[in-house]
Amino acid sequence: MTIDAELIAQNRAFEGVQKRFKHFSTVLNCDMTFSIYEPPQVSEQRDTLLWLSGLTCNDLNFVQKAGSQALAAQLGMVIVSCDTSPRGENVANDDAYDLGQGAGFYVDATEKPWSEHFKMYSYVVKEMIPFIQARYSKGKKVAIAGHSMGGHGALMIGLRNSDLFASISAFAPISNPMQCDWGKKAFSAYLGDNQQTWSRYDSKALLEECGPDIPPLLIDQGMADEFLDTQKLALPVFELNHPSIVIKQRQGYDHSYFYIASFLREHFEFHKRALGNIS
Amino acid sequence: MTIDAELIAQNRAFEGVQKRFKHFSTVLNCDMTFSIYEPPQVSEQRDTLLWLSGLTCNDLNFVQKAGSQALAAQLGMVIVSCDTSPRGENVANDDAYDLGQGAGFYVDATEKPWSEHFKMYSYVVKEMIPFIQARYSKGKKVAIAGHSMGGHGALMIGLRNSDLFASISAFAPISNPMQCDWGKKAFSAYLGDNQQTWSRYDSKALLEECGPDIPPLLIDQGMADEFLDTQKLALPVFELNHPSIVIKQRQGYDHSYFYIASFLREHFEFHKRALGNIS
Repeated sequence: MTIDAELIAQNRAFEGVQKRFKHFSTVLNCDMTFSIYEPPQVSEQRDTLLWLSGLTCNDLNFVQKAGSQALAAQLGMVIVSCDTSPRGENVANDDAYDLGQGAGFYVDATEKPWSEHFKMYSYVVKEMIPFIQARYSKGKKVAIAGHSMGGHGALMIGLRNSDLFASISAFAPISNPMQCDWGKKAFSAYLGDNQQTWSRYDSKALLEECGPDIPPLLIDQGMADEFLDTQKLALPVFELNHPSIVIKQRQGYDHSYFYIASFLREHFEFHKRALGNIS
Repeated sequence: MTIDAELIAQNRAFEGVQKRFKHFSTVLNCDMTFSIYEPPQVSEQRDTLLWLSGLTCNDLNFVQKAGSQALAAQLGMVIVSCDTSPRGENVANDDAYDLGQGAGFYVDATEKPWSEHFKMYSYVVKEMIPFIQARYSKGKKVAIAGHSMGGHGALMIGLRNSDLFASISAFAPISNPMQCDWGKKAFSAYLGDNQQTWSRYDSKALLEECGPDIPPLLIDQGMADEFLDTQKLALPVFELNHPSIVIKQRQGYDHSYFYIASFLREHFEFHKRALGNIS
């Protein structure tokens, strides 16, 4: 599947270029936007990271607030960030911030009215990754990372497609959506009652299945995160004591982009090392 | 004049803290917000920079988009950013983005209806700087910097108060507001027809007066800036060939925060050197 994307904005940044594209997604059946930072370094196969954002975000929040361009320019990494749900007047929505547009949860919805457009799992795997492969990574694996709902997306999509991803990292991920309010609400609406289906989108459940042979995996959690008590975030996966997961607990840090920015260098360097070792 | 400021938000960032305050400004006669990043390094007299933002901004744009915390934490600098105008339902306004709230132009208005609240020059000099002095710099001079309308503010306030400022820098400043559309519109509204008054707020006019003995001064301009043709920005000051001004022209860079972020390290390091030399 190829994407015919129109460049709608570009800004020079740290000697590279921050670009924004608009395209019609055949998977989601609506217009979508995504953003790409291209660092000054150019090579045949480019080290590329796909970033997935959290609730209420579109492709721009990470671009504007994380300080990613400085790091990507230094490390020579292409950074792609996409939207968090299908969009538009003809797309189903809900007044709540945690359901509908801005809250796609990276699943393929099976229930009405969501099943018409809400196919974010397939959008990432079947539309964005092939686009990245064709344009940047050219056969090289890609890194994937995200925050909160997007941390869930990065873990879950990364673990289910280890042939595509060189490394995975997540900030404050909803690692066990089957057991927290955000996840239960979204999965009920998008996926109905079938717990079998739910478990395919639950990182803790996936990690319990997949054994020690997983891509390099870094999970980060601010220990003053205001959603830690109610949504548990990374804690259920920390409790697994999985031998292959690098765990970082950050005392005093909350759920905000200030927290992400503070530790993004560590994540990018983690991915850069993994990308360097896998061709 | 002391500020009785209430802490309304704080986020840990790069081992320091990003804070936001609300206070009643006696100069502006309304409630105002400002933001302060406190780096992890603590000393008796702290190196402090005051940032002034451009049209439509409040105190948060720079905090969220410039990547300033990473740099401030590394260099040990306190960074203060304030709003660009008085605010509130009882404060005069205009539908245009370049007049009224969000567009104070750092002048003390003499004309109605603006003269009741629009006193941003005095707000910075008589309220913010004494607050910074009392809380952080403790007798040490302060650095001042800004972007666009805020670059105008930084140059103009810095040049008129060289006893207060260790160093001055500006990104794409409106350096000759008397001769560009933005400046003429705002100065006419806020200051009336008196060109004598206008010239006290015009950096080019001030530089023509003050001779070579000015604080260290760095002026930066993106040469693909979309407002360069119509508003001239830094160009009128570049044409002065003033011997003490460090000029930086950035090929391909526009007017955005991506441009500011790309070169903020150079500016902070410039100020840090100046702050290190002046007690």
